[in-house]
Amino acid sequence: MKKIEKVALFGGTHGNEMTGIYLIKKFLKNPHLIQRSTFEVFPFLSNPKAIDLRVRYVETDLNRCFAQEDLENLDKTLYEQLLAKTIHQKLINNHINFLIDFHSTTANMGLTIILSDTNKFHLHLVSYLSLVHPELKILHYSSEQKTQLLRSNTELGLTIEIGAVAQEVLDAELFIKTEQLIYSLLDYLDKYNQNKIAEGTHNLVFYEVFKKIDYPREGEEITAMIHPNLQFQDYQPVHPGDPLFITFQGETITYQGDFTVYPVFINEAAYYEKSIAMCFTRKREIAVTFDNND
Amino acid sequence: MKKIEKVALFGGTHGNEMTGIYLIKKFLKNPHLIQRSTFEVFPFLSNPKAIDLRVRYVETDLNRCFAQEDLENLDKTLYEQLLAKTIHQKLINNHINFLIDFHSTTANMGLTIILSDTNKFHLHLVSYLSLVHPELKILHYSSEQKTQLLRSNTELGLTIEIGAVAQEVLDAELFIKTEQLIYSLLDYLDKYNQNKIAEGTHNLVFYEVFKKIDYPREGEEITAMIHPNLQFQDYQPVHPGDPLFITFQGETITYQGDFTVYPVFINEAAYYEKSIAMCFTRKREIAVTFDNND
Repeated sequence: MKKIEKVALFGGTHGNEMTGIYLIKKFLKNPHLIQRSTFEVFPFLSNPKAIDLRVRYVETDLNRCFAQEDLENLDKTLYEQLLAKTIHQKLINNHINFLIDFHSTTANMGLTIILSDTNKFHLHLVSYLSLVHPELKILHYSSEQKTQLLRSNTELGLTIEIGAVAQEVLDAELFIKTEQLIYSLLDYLDKYNQNKIAEGTHNLVFYEVFKKIDYPREGEEITAMIHPNLQFQDYQPVHPGDPLFITFQGETITYQGDFTVYPVFINEAAYYEKSIAMCFTRKREIAVTFDNND
Repeated sequence: MKKIEKVALFGGTHGNEMTGIYLIKKFLKNPHLIQRSTFEVFPFLSNPKAIDLRVRYVETDLNRCFAQEDLENLDKTLYEQLLAKTIHQKLINNHINFLIDFHSTTANMGLTIILSDTNKFHLHLVSYLSLVHPELKILHYSSEQKTQLLRSNTELGLTIEIGAVAQEVLDAELFIKTEQLIYSLLDYLDKYNQNKIAEGTHNLVFYEVFKKIDYPREGEEITAMIHPNLQFQDYQPVHPGDPLFITFQGETITYQGDFTVYPVFINEAAYYEKSIAMCFTRKREIAVTFDNND
């Protein structure tokens, strides 16, 4: 079992997602809060220029700039493409082997951990955290873009996504919950390094993204909104025939699939430009067994 | 009694407040929806460039550019300062004598009408609308900036403010409610022009802004967030000793005044840069009498 020795925490990968930014600022001022005995923790503000301007990004979405071929391409010179190269180098120089990237969303996703991979390490970690924080949701989101994400810079990277909160806004309740989750996560890594995780088997519920759904459009212009019945209902079941959208004329557009789905990222502000009104997930449950001799 | 002959509706004065933008787009496509027999209605998108970029403004807040001296100052050449001059001219050319400006907020202000002045015309109008839409809130906000606002371009201008909704997001329920409110408002103007308003006296509750409260800060940096108990509690009473803020260290900061206040614009995203965490209001109730012979 390989130990976790260097952990990086990133806030402000999107400069208008305030929770992560102010958590990192707190940790930079109070480093003892994130110190643990068996590893080092490095807090970073990812995109200082976007943070300063209170915008998601200056020229392009930083969290789509980390594909290996883009990092190696010296002609990719937009601000965030350059920034990605320096962040990548920083991670190498500091020998980071675990990375947490803090995000927030206007969707009502509560406290969510997003994983690109469901390897044993991740499953053990999120099982533990689900026991400590019963409201925590686990989202498995392995898109074609996964290698472009900041979390892809280390084998064991993950994202903490919290909502609903508007961009540029601090929600104290979500701030406090996220802070507690980070402490639990660091505690887990500390126990893990010391082989002190309690053995046992837990049922883990998680949600697996399998499809992105766009808004109805005419050309580029959207012609419908998220249906009121669906707004803020992330992780709730949507059955065939249930409403998804309502047009500006008031007509309901229903879900035409033949099985129940659990949408997430419903009405995320930044996803209008990415042609995503919501992501459909399947709900899954698996037994996760932890054994220190694994 | 002077008749209302030309009415202007503005959406997208802030380019990231989607409700107004999509209402205006709907009205531009379906002009019959806002046609009434006794006056003309002109729908406008205020800041097309900011709308295109999905930002509040390009260079400066358009809704602070309408002071007479700024309109006359030909050296004020930021994008929005130029735009304000053309909007002002457009209003003159079209002989507009009533103006409604649509805004949205991340504060939980529901359906609000904001008035700079409580003249008889306004009080009659909002009394009528309060009867048709019991959830409607009336806010009297007469700040030192009132002449800088788009609504100040006509004597009878007012603002419709709705929330809570994140910037760049369409909330269908709020969209529909706002649309209904506009139709009621146009119906009122039509009846008013025909002397068909039912005579009578109504008690009108409204809220009067008397103070702007900033976040606790060290230099420019905020040191506290809106307290969870206060988040989304716009128009609810705050008594002496009630929590206002919570610091990043978890300490509560309470209201130190000696009378009950009713905060609005609590945690509005765009007001962090304006040093406003919330606005304190007093709750008032007056009897409004309508008499066609007035």
